[in-house]
Amino acid sequence: MCRWAAYRGDPLYIEEIVSSPAHSLIEQSHCATRAKTPTNGDGFGIAWYGDRPEPGRYRDILPAWSDCNLRSLARQIRSPLFLGHVRAATGGATRRDNCHPFVQGIWSFMHNGQIAGFERLRRAMESMLDDELFDARAGTTDSELMFLLALQFGLTQNPFSAMSDMLSFIEGLSHKLTGSALIRFTAAFSDGKTLHAIRYATDQFAPTLYAAPLGKGYCLVSEPLNDDVDAWMEIPPGSAVTLDDDGVSINAFKPEGIKEAARAVMA
Amino acid sequence: MCRWAAYRGDPLYIEEIVSSPAHSLIEQSHCATRAKTPTNGDGFGIAWYGDRPEPGRYRDILPAWSDCNLRSLARQIRSPLFLGHVRAATGGATRRDNCHPFVQGIWSFMHNGQIAGFERLRRAMESMLDDELFDARAGTTDSELMFLLALQFGLTQNPFSAMSDMLSFIEGLSHKLTGSALIRFTAAFSDGKTLHAIRYATDQFAPTLYAAPLGKGYCLVSEPLNDDVDAWMEIPPGSAVTLDDDGVSINAFKPEGIKEAARAVMA
Amino acid sequence: MCRWAAYRGDPLYIEEIVSSPAHSLIEQSHCATRAKTPTNGDGFGIAWYGDRPEPGRYRDILPAWSDCNLRSLARQIRSPLFLGHVRAATGGATRRDNCHPFVQGIWSFMHNGQIAGFERLRRAMESMLDDELFDARAGTTDSELMFLLALQFGLTQNPFSAMSDMLSFIEGLSHKLTGSALIRFTAAFSDGKTLHAIRYATDQFAPTLYAAPLGKGYCLVSEPLNDDVDAWMEIPPGSAVTLDDDGVSINAFKPEGIKEAARAVMA
Amino acid sequence: MCRWAAYRGDPLYIEEIVSSPAHSLIEQSHCATRAKTPTNGDGFGIAWYGDRPEPGRYRDILPAWSDCNLRSLARQIRSPLFLGHVRAATGGATRRDNCHPFVQGIWSFMHNGQIAGFERLRRAMESMLDDELFDARAGTTDSELMFLLALQFGLTQNPFSAMSDMLSFIEGLSHKLTGSALIRFTAAFSDGKTLHAIRYATDQFAPTLYAAPLGKGYCLVSEPLNDDVDAWMEIPPGSAVTLDDDGVSINAFKPEGIKEAARAVMA
Repeated sequence: MCRWAAYRGDPLYIEEIVSSPAHSLIEQSHCATRAKTPTNGDGFGIAWYGDRPEPGRYRDILPAWSDCNLRSLARQIRSPLFLGHVRAATGGATRRDNCHPFVQGIWSFMHNGQIAGFERLRRAMESMLDDELFDARAGTTDSELMFLLALQFGLTQNPFSAMSDMLSFIEGLSHKLTGSALIRFTAAFSDGKTLHAIRYATDQFAPTLYAAPLGKGYCLVSEPLNDDVDAWMEIPPGSAVTLDDDGVSINAFKPEGIKEAARAVMA
Repeated sequence: MCRWAAYRGDPLYIEEIVSSPAHSLIEQSHCATRAKTPTNGDGFGIAWYGDRPEPGRYRDILPAWSDCNLRSLARQIRSPLFLGHVRAATGGATRRDNCHPFVQGIWSFMHNGQIAGFERLRRAMESMLDDELFDARAGTTDSELMFLLALQFGLTQNPFSAMSDMLSFIEGLSHKLTGSALIRFTAAFSDGKTLHAIRYATDQFAPTLYAAPLGKGYCLVSEPLNDDVDAWMEIPPGSAVTLDDDGVSINAFKPEGIKEAARAVMA
Repeated sequence: MCRWAAYRGDPLYIEEIVSSPAHSLIEQSHCATRAKTPTNGDGFGIAWYGDRPEPGRYRDILPAWSDCNLRSLARQIRSPLFLGHVRAATGGATRRDNCHPFVQGIWSFMHNGQIAGFERLRRAMESMLDDELFDARAGTTDSELMFLLALQFGLTQNPFSAMSDMLSFIEGLSHKLTGSALIRFTAAFSDGKTLHAIRYATDQFAPTLYAAPLGKGYCLVSEPLNDDVDAWMEIPPGSAVTLDDDGVSINAFKPEGIKEAARAVMA
Repeated sequence: MCRWAAYRGDPLYIEEIVSSPAHSLIEQSHCATRAKTPTNGDGFGIAWYGDRPEPGRYRDILPAWSDCNLRSLARQIRSPLFLGHVRAATGGATRRDNCHPFVQGIWSFMHNGQIAGFERLRRAMESMLDDELFDARAGTTDSELMFLLALQFGLTQNPFSAMSDMLSFIEGLSHKLTGSALIRFTAAFSDGKTLHAIRYATDQFAPTLYAAPLGKGYCLVSEPLNDDVDAWMEIPPGSAVTLDDDGVSINAFKPEGIKEAARAVMA
C-alpha cells in the first residue's frame, strides 16, 4: 500500500505537498493513518515538469523521512505539475528502479494498488510489449509494467482508453492463466500538460483517491494531506479524473473489454 | 524507539532470532506491536562473535525487511553470542555509522532509549573522552557516545560499574546544563564471553526487557519474539542481567553517583 | 572490465584474497594495473559455501574499498570455496541485483567480459528461459542472463557442456540478429563442491585468467593478486579449468555448436 | 584528490558542466587524467542557488557516473551560481555527510586538498568552534571542519580574511602539535552572490585551479573540462579569486598569521 500526491496549477514548491503540511507525504510515510500496511519505508520518488519536455525525477530507496536530498529538492524546486510517491513494497525488491514515479519520454506515472497473482502473469504481460518498450523495462514491479502496457495500448493518443485496454487485457489474462482476476488500481499520470488519475478495482476495494484545491491549482492524493475533512472530495470508485486549464473533470471509468486496435496488438 | 535481541549459548544461526520466528526482529521492524513509534525503518545491524576476538559486524541503512544481504548472512552465520538491532531514529541521521551495534575492540553495544535534551549535552559528553575514544567516535548518536563513555569509565574492568558511572555522569551533567534529567536506557553489551544487559530509566518508563531460554542458551530481547507469553520473563526496571556459563543472573541496578575514580577522570 | 578471484581448498578467511595481499581485489578495485577500464567502483560481491548447501552472499553497490561491512565479513568468514567480484559496469545500472556473484540454488557464478550488441540480443536470450528461470532473473546484465541460460542448457548435469551450448547459442543468435558476433567470457562457477572456470572469446582478446596455489588450496583470478610473477600461471584462451579434490585440471574449451538436446530446447 | 567545478553568470543548466562536455566532472570522475589518485568513486555533490537564500543541495555516495538522479537534476536545474564536486576519499568514511559541497545557512563550500596529520589536529580544531558551529558538524572530514572554522573566523564578514585566519590557525596548530605543517587547499565558496576561490599550499604543490569564460559567465575548475588548452587560464598558487558582477578578479593570497580578532577567539 503506497501513498501519493500530485499537483497541477500555478507553480508551487514541491515541499508544499511533500514536507510542509501536518499530514504531508513524508509524515504519512512515517505513520500512515488510514491504510492497512503500517509503514512506508521502501523508497520514494518525485517527478516534476519544468523547462524541459520530459520531467525531472529524483528517487531513492531510503525512507523518505530521513532523506536530506529530498527535503532540499522539495524546498528549491517549484513546478506547475508534479507527482510524489512513497512506496511500501508489495512486490519487487527495494531498489531505485522499482520506485515510482516511472518515466518514459514526456510521460510520468505512479500507482497505488496491486495485481493479485502478478508473478504468474508477469511474463505474458511483458511479452505484449514492443521491443522498444520491453527494453525500457528497468525494474520488476507490476506498476512499471502496467505503465509500459498503457504506452503500448496508446497512452499518448488516448490516455483513458489506453488505461482501459491495459486493465481489460490484464483482467482477461488473469482469468485465462489463473481462473480469476483481482486488480486494484489508483494511479496518476501526466504528459506535462494534463494531469490524469484513475480510481478503479475489479472488486469493491478500490484504493482511495481524493481531490482538493491548493493555492491556484488542484491536488490529487491517495490520502488526505490534513485533517480538514471538508476540504477533501473523495473521488468514487470507477472514476477518471482530468486536471487541465479548464479545472477538474470527473467521469465514469470502467474497462469495457479491449478495443479492436488493442486486440490487433495482442493477436 | 528501537528493537533488539541478543543470544548467548550453544552456537545458533542468527536467523533463528532475526528472521525465523513469527515475531522476529525483522517482522517487528515492519510492524511493531507494543512500542510507541509505529515503524522501524532507519537501519539495522548485527554483531557476532566467531573465530576472532573482535566481533564481526554488518550494518546497513535499508529497512531490515528488504535487505537480502541480511537474510543470507543470518542464514549462514552461526555464533555462540550475537546481537541484532533494528533502528528507529530518535536523533542522528540515517547512516551506517549511526546503526547499532557499536563495536570497539572486542566490545559490542546496542541500546534502546534516549537522553532528553541530548543536543545540549553532546559536546560536554564528548569532551570527557580521552583522545583515543574521541577519535573512535564515528557517528552522531547518543547511544554511541554512551558506549564510549562507558569505555572511558572502565567498561573493560567492571562493566556494570562503568555503566553506572556513565549514567550518573550524564544525569549530573543534564541537571547542571538543563536543570533536569531524563534518561531511558535498555542496553545489551558484551566482550565476546559474557552477555550483559541493563534496564534502567530515571523515570518509571524504562524501555522493556525480556529474557527466555532458546535452544541451549538464552536470549534477551527488547520485545518478546513471539506470542508465547509464558516463555518470556519480563526483567524489572532497575536491573542488571548477566548471561555466562553459569546461566542467567539478575541484580538490582541503580546508578549511585559517580565513584571516586570516575570523579578523577571528570576533574 | 571487472575483476574477480575464487578459492577452493582448506578453509581460508575470505580476507586472504579480498583485502590482505598487496594487490587484493579491493586494492585492484581502487587502482587497476593491467586492465583497460581505469576504475572499478560500481559494486562488488562475495559468495561462499559454508554449512548450508546454498552459498551465502553479500553484495553492495558502494565501491569495495570503502565498505566496512565487506572488510568485517571477509575477516570473520572462513570457507573452503568462495568467489569474490568487483564490478565495473559495461551495462546494467548500478544496483545490487546487477552485482556478481549471481546465485541460483546451490550454484554461484561470476564473470568478466561482455557480449557485443547485448541490447539487441537480450529479449531473444530471455525468451529461451523456462518460466522458472525467467522469473529468477532479477537484474539487467548480460552476465546474469548467461548464467541463467547455462542453467537452462544443463549446468547441473554437465557444467562445461552447458556453458559451451550457452556460448554457441549466443554466438549463433548474434550472427542471426546482428550479422556478427563478439563474445568475451572469463568466468568462475561452482556448485559448492567443484570450482570451475572458463577463459574464452570469439576473438583473440579473451579476458585474462590466472591460477596459483594458495595455502592448502588453489585460487583462480582474473588478474594476479601480487607481483610475484613466477607464482601465477596464465591460463591460455580457450581453456576449461576444474578445481576439485584431485587438484587443478585444464582442458581445451571451444564451443562446437549446440548439441541436439540444446537444439530441442531452442525449437 | 577530488575534482570540482563552479559557475557564476547568466543562468546555466548544471549539466553544462557536470555531464555535457567531453571532460565534464562526471567523465573526470570515471577517468581522471591529470591527477594522482586514479579514480574518484567516493561520492559527489552539487549545490546551487535558486529562489531561496540558501542553496539547494544533492549529494550521494554512489559513483557520480552511475547516478541517474544526478543526471536528471543536472538536466532540469538552471542556476546563476552553482558548485559541483566529485570525491576521492583521503579520509573520512564514504557517506553523504562527508560529501562536498558543505552548506551552512546561505554559504556553500567545496575543497580539493588535505591537511597532513589531520587526525592529530582534529580534536583541537573542533574545540575552536562555538557551540552552534560545533553542533553543525555532521561528518568527519578535514574539509567540513575547515569550512566551519572559516565561519568561526568571520567568513560572513570578510571571506578571504577568514580563510586566511583559518589556514594560519591550522598551520600554527600543526607546528605546535606535530612539529611541522603541510596544507594543500584549493577551494570554492559562495554566499549565493559572489563566487570565491583560493589556490594555496604550504609547499609548492598547491592543487591546480583554472578559470574560463562559459556562456555569459565564468567557471572555475580544479581541472580543465576539455582539451581546449587555450581556453583555460591557470590560476597561480597563492591566489584569491573573486567572481561577481564586475567579472573575475585575482589577487595574491597568503595567510599572514592570525589577526587580533581571531586571536581573541583562540584565547
